[in-house]
Amino acid sequence: MDRVQIFDTTLRDGEQSPGISLNASEKLEIAHQLARLGVDVIEAGFPIASPGDFEAVQAIACEVDGPIITGLARAQAADIEAAFGAVRDAARPRIHTFISTSDIHIKYQMQNTREDVIAQTRAAVAHSRSFVEDVEFSPMDATRADLDFTAEVIAVAIEEGATVVNVPDTVGYTTPEEYAAFLRGLYERVPALKDVVLSVHCHDDLGLAVANSYAGVQAGARQVECAINGIGERAGNASLEEIVMLLATRGDVAGVETGVNTREIARTSRMVSRLTGYVVQPNKAIVGRNAFAHESGIHQDGVLKERTTFEIMDATTVGLEGNDLVLGKHSGRHALRNALEELGFTVSGAALNTAFQRFKEIADKKKQVTAMDLEALVTDELREEMAGYALEWFEVEASSRRPPHATVSVTTPTGESREGSFTGDGPVDAIFHAINAATNVDARLREFRVDAVTGGQDALGEVSVVLELEGQAASGQGVATDILEAAARAYVRALSVAAAKVRAAESAVDPRTAQLTPGP
Amino acid sequence: MDRVQIFDTTLRDGEQSPGISLNASEKLEIAHQLARLGVDVIEAGFPIASPGDFEAVQAIACEVDGPIITGLARAQAADIEAAFGAVRDAARPRIHTFISTSDIHIKYQMQNTREDVIAQTRAAVAHSRSFVEDVEFSPMDATRADLDFTAEVIAVAIEEGATVVNVPDTVGYTTPEEYAAFLRGLYERVPALKDVVLSVHCHDDLGLAVANSYAGVQAGARQVECAINGIGERAGNASLEEIVMLLATRGDVAGVETGVNTREIARTSRMVSRLTGYVVQPNKAIVGRNAFAHESGIHQDGVLKERTTFEIMDATTVGLEGNDLVLGKHSGRHALRNALEELGFTVSGAALNTAFQRFKEIADKKKQVTAMDLEALVTDELREEMAGYALEWFEVEASSRRPPHATVSVTTPTGESREGSFTGDGPVDAIFHAINAATNVDARLREFRVDAVTGGQDALGEVSVVLELEGQAASGQGVATDILEAAARAYVRALSVAAAKVRAAESAVDPRTAQLTPGP
Repeated sequence: MDRVQIFDTTLRDGEQSPGISLNASEKLEIAHQLARLGVDVIEAGFPIASPGDFEAVQAIACEVDGPIITGLARAQAADIEAAFGAVRDAARPRIHTFISTSDIHIKYQMQNTREDVIAQTRAAVAHSRSFVEDVEFSPMDATRADLDFTAEVIAVAIEEGATVVNVPDTVGYTTPEEYAAFLRGLYERVPALKDVVLSVHCHDDLGLAVANSYAGVQAGARQVECAINGIGERAGNASLEEIVMLLATRGDVAGVETGVNTREIARTSRMVSRLTGYVVQPNKAIVGRNAFAHESGIHQDGVLKERTTFEIMDATTVGLEGNDLVLGKHSGRHALRNALEELGFTVSGAALNTAFQRFKEIADKKKQVTAMDLEALVTDELREEMAGYALEWFEVEASSRRPPHATVSVTTPTGESREGSFTGDGPVDAIFHAINAATNVDARLREFRVDAVTGGQDALGEVSVVLELEGQAASGQGVATDILEAAARAYVRALSVAAAKVRAAESAVDPRTAQLTPGP
Repeated sequence: MDRVQIFDTTLRDGEQSPGISLNASEKLEIAHQLARLGVDVIEAGFPIASPGDFEAVQAIACEVDGPIITGLARAQAADIEAAFGAVRDAARPRIHTFISTSDIHIKYQMQNTREDVIAQTRAAVAHSRSFVEDVEFSPMDATRADLDFTAEVIAVAIEEGATVVNVPDTVGYTTPEEYAAFLRGLYERVPALKDVVLSVHCHDDLGLAVANSYAGVQAGARQVECAINGIGERAGNASLEEIVMLLATRGDVAGVETGVNTREIARTSRMVSRLTGYVVQPNKAIVGRNAFAHESGIHQDGVLKERTTFEIMDATTVGLEGNDLVLGKHSGRHALRNALEELGFTVSGAALNTAFQRFKEIADKKKQVTAMDLEALVTDELREEMAGYALEWFEVEASSRRPPHATVSVTTPTGESREGSFTGDGPVDAIFHAINAATNVDARLREFRVDAVTGGQDALGEVSVVLELEGQAASGQGVATDILEAAARAYVRALSVAAAKVRAAESAVDPRTAQLTPGP
């Protein structure tokens, strides 16, 4: 069977979602997991957008083995040079450059002409090829562009050495037949297109991202751009897990396959959800909590008699229900390390000590510590490494009969202990204001969410917060059996990230590019 | 343009999602909102499944004006009679009867033969038509069934008077071309099919529910079965909001229209999410928090220059961003009633007093009370009407340095005050156990979630819990600025529902049908 390349843009288009703000170590962790998942290409970021973006792409290029590593670049020399600088250390680097071909973008957004677009495409692809062998070109907003003109631009890109041509449905506007017809039209107009890889990049504004991607594959595309949990601009990109499982389950009609290890899907989904703070709805296909649940009597009855009556996929093929791994309060350091390794985390030395200490605290309160609990804890601990504020202790008195009061103690990045108190509207509000008082900042809460990591009365609580400090938004997560402790940890972490961003913003950044984190 | 009927199954297939358990007043509230939204058909439930289901369908049939009201029935006389009993008072009643036509269902699930299926179809449709003019027939699992046999069964159903023929993709297995080809095959084999309404019912297991529904419409279907927020068995049904906005936005290629008032979409989505406890992910198309947000610099820049550069829909057309309505602590009873009426809630008398009292409590703590806050509060208050336990007060001491301790006071259904105390792993855990102690039950927490209703530091917190009491699962929601108060309210409500279910289960229920809430 023909192989379709899976191009993951969780760290670029996905990371552009409002409120998501991953730091370099979080991006690296996700990239490692994407490599375990077996994606073919990782779009690691948009290097010129900010120094932080550049460094994250560079770290991924240096450290993550397996997939092609690419960085995004507008069709401009400075962008392309930044992208090359960031991906050059990868075993297989790629530069992904783009420019709009739709008249509405040319006229209103770029305020130039079709001739400019052709000239910029020619220069950008040639410049990219002077650095790397593997260059991807995207005509942005192609599905709303003139077919003949887009074909002309693509022909130029291929002439200059583009190895992959991606046709983005940037605004999520097209339908499957329309998209397939557009791609077939390109094949007719650009004979050289059959010598390069055709790629699809679909947005889900009308709920058609997966269907459009599939129609693209049927029209000849052999690369699909997608993101874990379908995150991305607005309604997001095609869900990686949906397109992969569609091709796997319906290989009979699709006639193509991917190299993805589907058993890593569930874990990757949980990691991305946890680190981005983007919840996955229970009825989300493949990775939602209920995607494999059968509620109705008739369905349950059918599944008991013969699994395939109501199931077209086995939950274990996406890595669900394989979580037999359980530790308890008597498990030792060695068992913890083995369990973590089984989950794909290599932890040793001081990090293992910290993880073990947190594990013991949790195991004291919880009868069983499951694989999902461990994932949450380790993901939680990874963030401890960042220099910043840390929670020492807190006390709260809450009652329905008087305003709640909180006192907290926080250590500063320089190791100082500081206390603060506040009487607020609710216990969480009181804690957050007390942390503000202790650290002497005026951060404002923007979003707040709590989830249980696993079911049951003694579940770990996972709190995600987004706060804003002097115009800089940052998110933080905290995990604990005590929801208030998890909230305090999450807030202190978000504060550390925001404070670092405020300091970075105060150092000089090119204002021309500081706000630009765009994409097809 | 041709009109496509929107058949909403939020209250039937949607309500079958694990953990969702709507009571009759909640179902009625959703049905009224669906009528405001302008759906053509409301599938209100599965009347034979339980007395509660029957009563809810009956209440909707009596009270909700506008849409056709239908109830589901297996192809069995008792089911059909129950369905008729429940919908007979509707201005336009419909009976929806179904039976599987796939060999895998016939063999393993029903353990009968193709001949049985034909005979049952004939009898069921004829029996249904003896009660009502409007009868819908569904061959369950049709997309995995033999085309010729399914056509034969459909021809029998039409012969017996079926007015709507629905072709369900019960397990979410088909692809758009395959589905369209199947429907075209039915039209070729069953000439009479052109004289009735063809309907589509697609599940989203592979992320294709909307695309398959759209392919069905293009093949001639003029009814689409769908659910708000795409809830339903497993990965759910086609999202109502996605299919409606697809047809509205791409009317140019779809060539059909719906009668839905799209400006009610956002509010309907929020109501269903709140009452079911099913969160909508931020990147969900149309109704996700970020569906209309532009994060990247290039996108924001483009939208400022010309909205259509990156927007294919206007957020106001789905009822977002129209929430200018804001009340404050000085707003009076009259202003509150007007605001509620603007939101579609008619509240007067004692209910208005209760709502006003809660509003004042909230307004004291929150600077601005927005339309979304009011929606949450009123939805919260509606649940107060149920007889059951009620929270009087609580006190909690929490600290990172010792186990948290909670004391609560709860009134019983008979009006008695009871106190309970507990020292738990976290403050929420302590409160829940203290409530168990006060009410002398052994309920176990299954799920726990907290969301902020609106953004900002003084946002209302909304807590959803699912608990289990003597084998009966029930959910509850609570809204307050204090997360612990919201949690306590949610738990007490879930407990009231669970206790009522336990009492109901103890009274005699036909064990043959008690577990059966099935569906195409």
